[in-house]
Amino acid sequence: MAQGAYHIGMDHSAPLAVTSADIDAAARVLAPHAVRTPLLSSPAIDAMTRARVLFKPEVLQRTGSFKFRGAFNKMSAIPEAARGGGVVAFSSGNHAQGVAAAAQLLGMRATIVMPADAPLAKRERTKAYGAEVVLYDRLREDREAIARTLASKHGATLVPPYDDPEIIAGQGTIGREIAEDLQALGVAPDIVVAPASGGGLVAGIAVAVKARYPHAAVMTAEPAGFDDHARSFRAGRREAHDGKSQTICDALMAPIPGEITFAINRALGVQGLVASDDEVGVAVGAAFRELKLVVEPGGAVALAALLAERMDARGKTIVIVLSGGNVDADLYARLIV
Amino acid sequence: MAQGAYHIGMDHSAPLAVTSADIDAAARVLAPHAVRTPLLSSPAIDAMTRARVLFKPEVLQRTGSFKFRGAFNKMSAIPEAARGGGVVAFSSGNHAQGVAAAAQLLGMRATIVMPADAPLAKRERTKAYGAEVVLYDRLREDREAIARTLASKHGATLVPPYDDPEIIAGQGTIGREIAEDLQALGVAPDIVVAPASGGGLVAGIAVAVKARYPHAAVMTAEPAGFDDHARSFRAGRREAHDGKSQTICDALMAPIPGEITFAINRALGVQGLVASDDEVGVAVGAAFRELKLVVEPGGAVALAALLAERMDARGKTIVIVLSGGNVDADLYARLIV
Repeated sequence: MAQGAYHIGMDHSAPLAVTSADIDAAARVLAPHAVRTPLLSSPAIDAMTRARVLFKPEVLQRTGSFKFRGAFNKMSAIPEAARGGGVVAFSSGNHAQGVAAAAQLLGMRATIVMPADAPLAKRERTKAYGAEVVLYDRLREDREAIARTLASKHGATLVPPYDDPEIIAGQGTIGREIAEDLQALGVAPDIVVAPASGGGLVAGIAVAVKARYPHAAVMTAEPAGFDDHARSFRAGRREAHDGKSQTICDALMAPIPGEITFAINRALGVQGLVASDDEVGVAVGAAFRELKLVVEPGGAVALAALLAERMDARGKTIVIVLSGGNVDADLYARLIV
Repeated sequence: MAQGAYHIGMDHSAPLAVTSADIDAAARVLAPHAVRTPLLSSPAIDAMTRARVLFKPEVLQRTGSFKFRGAFNKMSAIPEAARGGGVVAFSSGNHAQGVAAAAQLLGMRATIVMPADAPLAKRERTKAYGAEVVLYDRLREDREAIARTLASKHGATLVPPYDDPEIIAGQGTIGREIAEDLQALGVAPDIVVAPASGGGLVAGIAVAVKARYPHAAVMTAEPAGFDDHARSFRAGRREAHDGKSQTICDALMAPIPGEITFAINRALGVQGLVASDDEVGVAVGAAFRELKLVVEPGGAVALAALLAERMDARGKTIVIVLSGGNVDADLYARLIV
């Protein structure tokens, strides 16, 4: 693909796997069940950053994270005849809860493969939605293989965490709501930043936001050492992170961007930002003190990038997605005091 | 006043000190500066209570509590000629921040008389808005006398915390927004509950909500031992609480309902609910886990009353006002773990 095919970082050479119309359709599917989260402002954060910052608090979403949107959209499309076999998913926690809650609403059986070291709150809540939880060893077992075996045993449908057009379209409803609310406010965004693990959230948001605001910059935020999106955007192809690091952002540990998500994000010129665990801790504390929102570490990394001045925010209109709030109380207590 | 003057708990015999039109005017004054807080729902809390519960999260308001509304409305009405003298207020914390932030926006000097044992977060944040903080001993000194002396020394205007029609009208904009959002949802409220200290928040809400939903029940929620509203509603006249208790609800320690607030609340048939500190702690934890909202103890007492089944909620539409989120991190950490 020649460099000449690019225009202000956007590749117009191929149709995207998810369109604005797919996101409109997902919005109709989700309307009766998902929380339409508001766009919030904080005069204190505006003063700290000298920007106009608008927050999209997906911590207020059903199950406490954005993941319900994609899971419900995907599972609503499973034909009636296939619903009896239920669904299987693998997830460190937020996708697990999203799938479990969607299954409960749709009257389907759900089996979730979760790492044994996933936060207790996420495991317990997944069970509370009626799902069966199967634990695996993150370092020694292959969660995808376990999930596939379970799916074939039950005749179940596998619900992937991010690399799927219907999942991406579901997450894209966040971008659609952001665009609608910005239009109502009469404000155009300069930058929209969201946390990235597999990249589905950002891909969906990028499609929806760019449809109405083609000049807005869309950015991923990742924890240091788990910067596979930032690396991949620089390299122009999918690259894994080095896999040697630890992070408090348990929700953001996917090794490499998804194929579909990366194709969308690259085509739309998405850029990558990184924040350290210490900076994430500061952001969790700032959300506690200034926003009065409970944000989990992985959900706070876009705010962390803003507060750590990883982007030129001064005088601009910035949308920060706070993607989840499912954090164990003991870790949260350590981060805020 | 004869018993016959009452109709379904409402006294129609005298005009109220605050009208729906006063609240409309306050809404216009506040629109450019106050956060228009959303009405949030939580499928998890709905399932727990078997009710449809809608939350008005004033924790998201400028300064982290509803108090900014009344303070800004009151101070906007101070004539230009009198603004040079600044304002003086006495407050355990949230009114202090509301007045300080309003003064900063209006370019006025603010002096706040605060108890020496007020939460550190509230003292520090009051100073951060540029106000001068004067501490007093809650048990041995008279804060109103100190405030009056300061006001006369500076030629300043005293901004009372609740017993004032413009303060009440400002807080009433919360009820106006609740009514607007309920109308948009096509839902009529059965019960609206808000925390009460001096009663200004509930009085304002009662005027606004009853104007559109005359059959809705409006209720105060108070911590056990600080149940002066509940006692006063039962007695039919203002009664102080016994003053012998301790509570973690530092925001709700006023000794007796205000004269103006009580006249309004009594005329509108407001009822009183009480919750223990343990129940308040449970509510703070539930808001952390289920709502992902940081709510201070005093701000959580209406939710506490709901979760402790102090009202007949099943099958009903209940609006719960979460009035503030300014809590020290160490107390918060103790309540959620």
